[in-house]
Amino acid sequence: MLDYKLLAALAAVVEQGGFERAANILGLSQSAVSQRVKLLEARIGQPVLVRATPPAPTEIGRRLLNHVQQVRLLERDLTRQVPALDDAVPERLRLAINADSLATWWPSAVSGFCTHQNVLLELVVEDQEVGLKRMRAGEVAGCVCAAERPVAGANSVALGAMPYLAVASPAFMARCFFDGINETLLPQAPAVVFGEDDQLQHRYLAELGITGSFAYHLCPSSEGFVRLLESGLGWGMVPELQVRDELAQGKLVELIPGRAIHVPLYWHYWRNGGRLLIGLTQHLRREAQAALVPL
Amino acid sequence: MLDYKLLAALAAVVEQGGFERAANILGLSQSAVSQRVKLLEARIGQPVLVRATPPAPTEIGRRLLNHVQQVRLLERDLTRQVPALDDAVPERLRLAINADSLATWWPSAVSGFCTHQNVLLELVVEDQEVGLKRMRAGEVAGCVCAAERPVAGANSVALGAMPYLAVASPAFMARCFFDGINETLLPQAPAVVFGEDDQLQHRYLAELGITGSFAYHLCPSSEGFVRLLESGLGWGMVPELQVRDELAQGKLVELIPGRAIHVPLYWHYWRNGGRLLIGLTQHLRREAQAALVPL
Repeated sequence: MLDYKLLAALAAVVEQGGFERAANILGLSQSAVSQRVKLLEARIGQPVLVRATPPAPTEIGRRLLNHVQQVRLLERDLTRQVPALDDAVPERLRLAINADSLATWWPSAVSGFCTHQNVLLELVVEDQEVGLKRMRAGEVAGCVCAAERPVAGANSVALGAMPYLAVASPAFMARCFFDGINETLLPQAPAVVFGEDDQLQHRYLAELGITGSFAYHLCPSSEGFVRLLESGLGWGMVPELQVRDELAQGKLVELIPGRAIHVPLYWHYWRNGGRLLIGLTQHLRREAQAALVPL
Repeated sequence: MLDYKLLAALAAVVEQGGFERAANILGLSQSAVSQRVKLLEARIGQPVLVRATPPAPTEIGRRLLNHVQQVRLLERDLTRQVPALDDAVPERLRLAINADSLATWWPSAVSGFCTHQNVLLELVVEDQEVGLKRMRAGEVAGCVCAAERPVAGANSVALGAMPYLAVASPAFMARCFFDGINETLLPQAPAVVFGEDDQLQHRYLAELGITGSFAYHLCPSSEGFVRLLESGLGWGMVPELQVRDELAQGKLVELIPGRAIHVPLYWHYWRNGGRLLIGLTQHLRREAQAALVPL
């Protein structure tokens, strides 16, 4: 068998983002954690960690982390069958979620499941385009993202699509689109973009035949994004689910009513992740059906 | 004079989080950007970048970035005096903001200023305890955070305090505090914590004499945090500004009515940052007075 003391040290360093925090969580000294990682590297004959801030796993380190993640989930199943093994500590489940899901349908979809199963969530917020990197790195057990193709060892299931609308405040519309929504005014009106990976505004403009550059603010926060639109700073693409009230109250209006971009969402989970992940997967499929649009 | 071509390459790599994106934004090939950074290192005789993902500045790199940031702001003042220099491109202002400010008072406080001054915001969301790291690294021109002490070369002004309340859903209260809020039930009821740096829940418990460990979910998103509380997953500390409606509607209730923790907020900005930062500073002080509680 592998030496799981060493693997657990590696996992803690990557998950906690440093040796000091890893030592805290393992109840060890920092040098003990460092020794364990070095010993692991000596046994394998290759480095498992890039010593950066935060430390990142090497290719071989990633494979080890995937393995640890799966062993942990299997252990959980075992303690269900052999309750004496259970130390009654709630299970921690580390998942990567795109910010817009977390701001809309996700909380009510998972809350009951976690309470019932005695699971503590450790959420990592990732742009929907990049969440899979966390799966590949073995840092999370599951992931909600826009990519369909699962990483090796994982499955993906379609959850549904989130419709995004282009919206702005009435004051912004009057100021920037005084002459209507047209090809001259659209690229001049500042947009709000979630991050450099967020291509939704680009797609919206491209579908209207506008492909050049445009002015934009960057705001990597779902809630801040909507508040900036409301305060008249720019226009932007937001989940219809998130701005229903603002649209009904007239605080935000659609640039072109009825024009939406549908972003597909997939749930990725480790294939050998045990009963808990299978249960969560069934639960999420059911809940997503009520909140999202069929793909 | 320093070779600003080389410094601009370093700044782009750090600000964009990689050589490929830096090359895109500079309109250069990736190898040209890499050459410029290497040339800079050869001239200085020391490394300026740690080649990690994302690349991080070394100590000397940080000092160079601070310098670039300040030169950029001074250039802006110059183009106001010599308008022929101005290429009429809106100014980009990179600022670090704590997530809860961004979700509450910040958008309406800055929107008018940015529109009037033709400024495009590039916001970086940082926990209030760690936003200053971005100032020190020279990656941002200003920062809203809970620390008062400015970094070298910067000033800080007090904006006011944000009151945080401990809240949960009525269903959670009934389930976890069936016997009232007491020292036995409080540590057993799962909390929601923003991130490992978020000590507000710990402080709330400590002020009630509870100092041991407690169960918690991790959710690094302001909006997701409130939605998780609403869905009954746990209790947590949220800005009173953010949950006024939910409290009025009875979707959330206070654990102990009237018990708040006040988090101070300070605005940090480069001392030689030019007129734009001085104007923004005056504007923020005025706006914060209306939204926050006096310190």
